[in-house]
Amino acid sequence: MSTTSVTVCQPVLIGGQWREASFDKTFQSTNPSDYSAIPREYPISTWDDIDEALTAAADAATQLRQLPMESIARFLELFADRIQQNQAMLVDVAHQETGLAKTPRLADVELPRTFNQLRLAAAAARCGDWAGPVIDTKAGIRSMMEPLGPVWVFGPNNFPFAFNSAAGGDFASAIAAGNPVIAKANSSHPETTRLFAALAKDAADEVGLPAATVQLIYRTSHADGERMVSDHRCGATGYTGSRSAGLTLKAAADAAGKPIYLELSSVNPVVIMPEALDERCDKIVDEYVTSVLMGAGQMCTNPGMVLLVKSESSDRFVDAVSSRFASTPSGTLLSPAVAKSLVASISTLADGGAKIVTGGGPGETRRCSVSNTLLKTNAATFLRDPEVFQTEAFGNAALVVVADSVDELITVIESLEGNLTGCIYSAAGGDESSYDRIAFALIPKVGRFLNDKMPTGVAVSPAMNHGGPYPATGHPAFTAVGIPASMIRFGKLSCYDNVRHARLPQLLQDKNHFGTWRRIDGRWTTDDVGSLK
Amino acid sequence: MSTTSVTVCQPVLIGGQWREASFDKTFQSTNPSDYSAIPREYPISTWDDIDEALTAAADAATQLRQLPMESIARFLELFADRIQQNQAMLVDVAHQETGLAKTPRLADVELPRTFNQLRLAAAAARCGDWAGPVIDTKAGIRSMMEPLGPVWVFGPNNFPFAFNSAAGGDFASAIAAGNPVIAKANSSHPETTRLFAALAKDAADEVGLPAATVQLIYRTSHADGERMVSDHRCGATGYTGSRSAGLTLKAAADAAGKPIYLELSSVNPVVIMPEALDERCDKIVDEYVTSVLMGAGQMCTNPGMVLLVKSESSDRFVDAVSSRFASTPSGTLLSPAVAKSLVASISTLADGGAKIVTGGGPGETRRCSVSNTLLKTNAATFLRDPEVFQTEAFGNAALVVVADSVDELITVIESLEGNLTGCIYSAAGGDESSYDRIAFALIPKVGRFLNDKMPTGVAVSPAMNHGGPYPATGHPAFTAVGIPASMIRFGKLSCYDNVRHARLPQLLQDKNHFGTWRRIDGRWTTDDVGSLK
Repeated sequence: MSTTSVTVCQPVLIGGQWREASFDKTFQSTNPSDYSAIPREYPISTWDDIDEALTAAADAATQLRQLPMESIARFLELFADRIQQNQAMLVDVAHQETGLAKTPRLADVELPRTFNQLRLAAAAARCGDWAGPVIDTKAGIRSMMEPLGPVWVFGPNNFPFAFNSAAGGDFASAIAAGNPVIAKANSSHPETTRLFAALAKDAADEVGLPAATVQLIYRTSHADGERMVSDHRCGATGYTGSRSAGLTLKAAADAAGKPIYLELSSVNPVVIMPEALDERCDKIVDEYVTSVLMGAGQMCTNPGMVLLVKSESSDRFVDAVSSRFASTPSGTLLSPAVAKSLVASISTLADGGAKIVTGGGPGETRRCSVSNTLLKTNAATFLRDPEVFQTEAFGNAALVVVADSVDELITVIESLEGNLTGCIYSAAGGDESSYDRIAFALIPKVGRFLNDKMPTGVAVSPAMNHGGPYPATGHPAFTAVGIPASMIRFGKLSCYDNVRHARLPQLLQDKNHFGTWRRIDGRWTTDDVGSLK
Repeated sequence: MSTTSVTVCQPVLIGGQWREASFDKTFQSTNPSDYSAIPREYPISTWDDIDEALTAAADAATQLRQLPMESIARFLELFADRIQQNQAMLVDVAHQETGLAKTPRLADVELPRTFNQLRLAAAAARCGDWAGPVIDTKAGIRSMMEPLGPVWVFGPNNFPFAFNSAAGGDFASAIAAGNPVIAKANSSHPETTRLFAALAKDAADEVGLPAATVQLIYRTSHADGERMVSDHRCGATGYTGSRSAGLTLKAAADAAGKPIYLELSSVNPVVIMPEALDERCDKIVDEYVTSVLMGAGQMCTNPGMVLLVKSESSDRFVDAVSSRFASTPSGTLLSPAVAKSLVASISTLADGGAKIVTGGGPGETRRCSVSNTLLKTNAATFLRDPEVFQTEAFGNAALVVVADSVDELITVIESLEGNLTGCIYSAAGGDESSYDRIAFALIPKVGRFLNDKMPTGVAVSPAMNHGGPYPATGHPAFTAVGIPASMIRFGKLSCYDNVRHARLPQLLQDKNHFGTWRRIDGRWTTDDVGSLK
């Protein structure tokens, strides 16, 4: 951070205008591939910017409520098109800012996911399914979800596209639910975020959405962060990032009664049953190493903890993973801060008593990296301090916990905090009663439970849950991925009791204008009221 | 409170046993109809009781997850039957503890509502609709809501049956979602609650539910209250009651990441448009007085604030309501504490500048009562301190706010906090554009929006929202009334990814075992997977 002349500093997008920020300090991001400073400066906004953005957003929220959902759907589609058209530029900038591979990761996986998700959100906005209309014709009561108001989106460092605060999952969900978004860029990829905001603004202008439907600031003080999520003009917040910053924001939002949806840390335990290793150790090692080192391990669903029962095959598994870790070049981490934090987490685990099987040291020094690191401990040691051993080592590191028995393994599971995911690998004709006991212990601890599959693929499916019990997220009933379920987070339930028919929102009128699935007198249907087939 | 010998003290229900509490102090409740102390003592449990109840509940939660939903449904139905069979006893005791009329209120309205609600919850548990199963056959991902764990239920003073912590809406929702409940009795009707818990325990025993499916304590210290809702064994809390106690519990639960669903204070604004008064003033006065004095005004949805535009008819409305207030005998309040708090709230409003039109003094001194009280202020005064004028006067008191214009009335609405309900009365051929503007301002502030109808009837409808923006509740997406929606509060979203078919929960298997509505590949259906018609 440095005090700098105003001219080199990138503008914020507030109230439909790209303008000079109100700021005292600036920041720059670092190219993690070579530690070079990226020659662009971004303002750390003072409260004046935030205040203005909130006022403009509140005004936009009012205007959005009066527009047909078709406008919002068209905006999302147009934005998706523009992202697709500007793919090369976005990929170049994101690669520079994050070190993530241009291909396949950025160009072939994450960017398509991003524009496809915007199109799914458009479809959900158009048909209104997300609002879950319920009609009780006898009682004369009809209800549905409606937009909540301005949404702050804090995107994470690890998905510069798919979770970007100006284009990713929370953005798409909040907008498709009818709310304006104020994007708070992740400090490690501000330029990528600025490019998205610019494309979004142009698309919004073309459709004629309110000027402040999409706004962008880059960074604030911590105190202003707490103030903005609890401000009376704020509707809700979507946050993906570190646990400590997330919990600070949560405390502020909770105290003001403002919904905040958090996606925090998760170690994503993978239980591999002995019979599964006996059956297909090499295959599982391959699946595991691919998953745990994907994106240099910087995934929310990275399988950072493996739970095994001691046997010959558990030793074989550890040896094989260790050897693969040692022979695979370490990935580039997202930023110097991520590298520093990963080294610190490895130390915490090692100091707690875990043995470093491989890695543990710095990676190549010319770029942000740490050696692929495998740690190992036994269940008895783990159980002496489960909190320490659940330290998330965000990056290319993992901990194997070896239990003496299935019973002890279950005790370890019972000591776990909430996680986004949990997996069990088992054999075709394995011990189903052990499986049952392990699954029974694991399922309440996780949002998504898998069999024989690593957790790093998070499909944009209506059945997806990218969520989980605290502290993986702030509330166990909501998902951050999956249209339309993720949109519900940004709605309020509105009930219309005895309201004259012509005054009802279109989605609740007798005629089903948009082919929406509605529950009428206990039955889900796309029919009109009164014409139930 | 007094220190007392153990023998006279009522037992708590913990771990399936009615046993002497662990306590230092006791309390007694007062018969509000004559200020007599009711000769029964109840323990204020120490942490030992709570600790034991939580451990037993956690164990029961584990067992409940292994039982068929049919057992839970049968329990709820059997409990409903027993309530119906013991109607006379329950009505007598509740009348003694609350002063609410035996008939029609307790016997003919609230008790039937209570057992009917338990039967609706049974049906929802049986068919599993509440879990909202979503199946994506292509991706191999299936998700649904599952029980969350032990639920604390804190019932309010004003519905000894329908919101009772051992029989009411939160109890029914939490149990039907598969969770054990620990009931915290409301201190003003502990015996009613004990009777319900006894009937529930017998029904649970008959069905063979785990011993700690229903537990009961009467009261704790404030510090233990905060500790119990944030305990690691707690799944969630349902609380209905005063704002200050609720917000203290919320802060504790939030800090521990434990869901807490609150129903707090609400003034339930009723806007009556000038044309409506011109059209049918007498009828509206009648509806209003009936609603606002129902149950001595002690309803969560009591229409405690009327918003008018100044006109001849607004004066006529105020005069007519005032005269009806003066000529109607004041109801009996629930407890000395309620009477004291009502007098204090009236003072707060009067000190703020509202004029007492009628009442304001003590009622009959031989029973808990306050004169029916009507206060009035103008919008300009209101807008000088909206917080003061939104003080909830829980009981038979109301505030009329008279604006000079529709614009000023809308400014008042914009200054309102979140409420459970909001109403607009308008004329048949009235000013639809004024209506639109008022409705547009009011709807985001309320959970349930009504036309031409007072808010005190809260139908147990699937389309009901008995909820609303903070501080009416703690989260704007959930309802406390209405099966199955109210059950969602006590669930966690669980996603099954690539899980072998035989291992899936029954509700997610291909065959639709229970006729459940499920969303399969985007389509709501009761068909089996693979046999979509």
